[in-house]
Amino acid sequence: MTSATRLVKFEGQFRMHRAGALESPTLAFETWGELTDAKDNAILIFTGLSPSAHATSCVEDPAPGWWEDMIGSGLPIDTDRFFVICVNSLGSCFGSTGPASVNPLTGKRYRLSFPVLTLEDVAESAWLVVRHLGIEKLHTVVGCSMGGMSGLALCVRHPESTRSFVSISSATRAMPFSIAVRSLQREMIRSDPNWRKGNYKSGKPPIMGQRLARKLGMITYRSAEEWVQRFGRERSTEHARIEDQFVAEFSVESYLENHANKFTGAFDPNCYLYLSHASDLFDLAEYGGSLQSGFKRLQLERTLVIGVRTDILFPLEQQRELAAGFAEVCDDAQLVELDCIRGHDSFLVEMDAFRPVLCDFFE
Amino acid sequence: MTSATRLVKFEGQFRMHRAGALESPTLAFETWGELTDAKDNAILIFTGLSPSAHATSCVEDPAPGWWEDMIGSGLPIDTDRFFVICVNSLGSCFGSTGPASVNPLTGKRYRLSFPVLTLEDVAESAWLVVRHLGIEKLHTVVGCSMGGMSGLALCVRHPESTRSFVSISSATRAMPFSIAVRSLQREMIRSDPNWRKGNYKSGKPPIMGQRLARKLGMITYRSAEEWVQRFGRERSTEHARIEDQFVAEFSVESYLENHANKFTGAFDPNCYLYLSHASDLFDLAEYGGSLQSGFKRLQLERTLVIGVRTDILFPLEQQRELAAGFAEVCDDAQLVELDCIRGHDSFLVEMDAFRPVLCDFFE
Repeated sequence: MTSATRLVKFEGQFRMHRAGALESPTLAFETWGELTDAKDNAILIFTGLSPSAHATSCVEDPAPGWWEDMIGSGLPIDTDRFFVICVNSLGSCFGSTGPASVNPLTGKRYRLSFPVLTLEDVAESAWLVVRHLGIEKLHTVVGCSMGGMSGLALCVRHPESTRSFVSISSATRAMPFSIAVRSLQREMIRSDPNWRKGNYKSGKPPIMGQRLARKLGMITYRSAEEWVQRFGRERSTEHARIEDQFVAEFSVESYLENHANKFTGAFDPNCYLYLSHASDLFDLAEYGGSLQSGFKRLQLERTLVIGVRTDILFPLEQQRELAAGFAEVCDDAQLVELDCIRGHDSFLVEMDAFRPVLCDFFE
Repeated sequence: MTSATRLVKFEGQFRMHRAGALESPTLAFETWGELTDAKDNAILIFTGLSPSAHATSCVEDPAPGWWEDMIGSGLPIDTDRFFVICVNSLGSCFGSTGPASVNPLTGKRYRLSFPVLTLEDVAESAWLVVRHLGIEKLHTVVGCSMGGMSGLALCVRHPESTRSFVSISSATRAMPFSIAVRSLQREMIRSDPNWRKGNYKSGKPPIMGQRLARKLGMITYRSAEEWVQRFGRERSTEHARIEDQFVAEFSVESYLENHANKFTGAFDPNCYLYLSHASDLFDLAEYGGSLQSGFKRLQLERTLVIGVRTDILFPLEQQRELAAGFAEVCDDAQLVELDCIRGHDSFLVEMDAFRPVLCDFFE
């Protein structure tokens, strides 16, 4: 949580989608730009699994945000025109209530007593923030990766909540390859003896499991094609000095090592488990019994689906399925397939490819 | 090791490709069919990482082999015509000397004192078996997955060892995606506290790490496309009875669980580490400094490269690279790209697609 993050506490019970409730949860969010008097220029951004609400820098917090090159004055999501909101997902650990938060009813951290989290809960809680800001209808919902499904959850449950929807490298629901990857990541953390069924000790989190999970994450977030170009069979410079034959020998191994070291410690392992599981659970087809019936509940004036050829986690076929569904119920439905080589992560790193597409959409 | 497995011990030092030596190693192998008087009908099969020498059943051992539907009387690798040899790779644990074997010089298991294993060592030791059988030139070398690279190692080091070469779902060398996957699998095993730097106790192997590694294996051996068709978002039948939200909920998770349970215990974890590492190390370009120079050392009359569209571990581009290299140095070089949906494992499970291709080749 950074200095620009605002907190709002919703007094009373927040009923969870599957079962159970949270007592007076807090949501963390940031905003940029000015809301018009007509309150018709608000854009809500749903994040992927791990980012905070700090999507871009501002005067109070000049640290670069996770989508720094996309949001700001003169940028595709133009803060001179739009009032931009980014909420830290319910269940996360950057200010919003999640498994690492203290349960006000017990005075102890929730840990695994946190109720099952769904993207419906992420959506409903973000909608509370929007309403709290006095906004009744959003200009656009933008959802990246998991956030695209959170956005779909909002649109299908509150069809009048937004005029437009932009889905980036997301899907109508998870397919078995992604479920298998995430399930294995969760098992890595749960298998770490330090996890202790969620009751890991302060200062002794399941680092080993988190490192493994992050490495598998990187393998599925990027692409084989990028790595052939970037690393090939280049050897790691550190390797020559190390005698153990199983320590990173190739540059790609050192790269994974560096990423794993950066991530672990930065994210609560229980929050990770809950959000990862929520990504598996969402299914637009649960609204009416089929994808078609789910799409029929939407009331969107404009939609844009962006996908990337090399994304193995949310592959192009899923982008096409999503775009085709929107086209059935929305007169202005656009699909853009990008030829980026950085896989699922492209929306975070191949800004030159993504910016023009979002620029066009918002112009 | 089964009742049809034969053992041969090579007295004296076996010098390893990178460094070190093995004292009088044993190689396990099986054969099927009869060698002609001219000794010109022998086919040598190099296996993937985990199979034993028991490629197919026989009178002495009627248990189905790992390539049961490919080798036998009237089958594509026809034991009525050919004398077929399959060697358990050096470094494995089904009869051949490996890290789980006792070092005759110390009377203790090698474990991590086993020298660095390369596919050159796998190839050279298999070649000793072939020579032991009185064969000077093979009719064909067939290599599947890792075995394709072992086969290449043989062909580049002993250009007169075979007339023909069949590579199935293999490559000239590993690329970073596969290296990353295998490196992570090794780290899973090495991170298991029970591994104890290779000194795991009898009856207490690093099961947890092996389970995780096997699951990641399955994720990369099959394909997203197969799993969409096979599992979709189907729920596991066991799940309803279990309260823990993180226990397998989707059928694909139960599938991985079943495969992990079958594999662990069946393969020595240290042997796995060595063979996995050897798969990363092989590079045809080490022969003369470039792939081209490596190919130029080959003296093959006929080559066949088979690859599968949905293979993410040894993708089609690598099949094309291999076939193009063969075509430069061999008049009869064929590439067959199969449209199977079972990914890398297709050669083990989509026999109806593979059999006709091998039939044509051997006719």
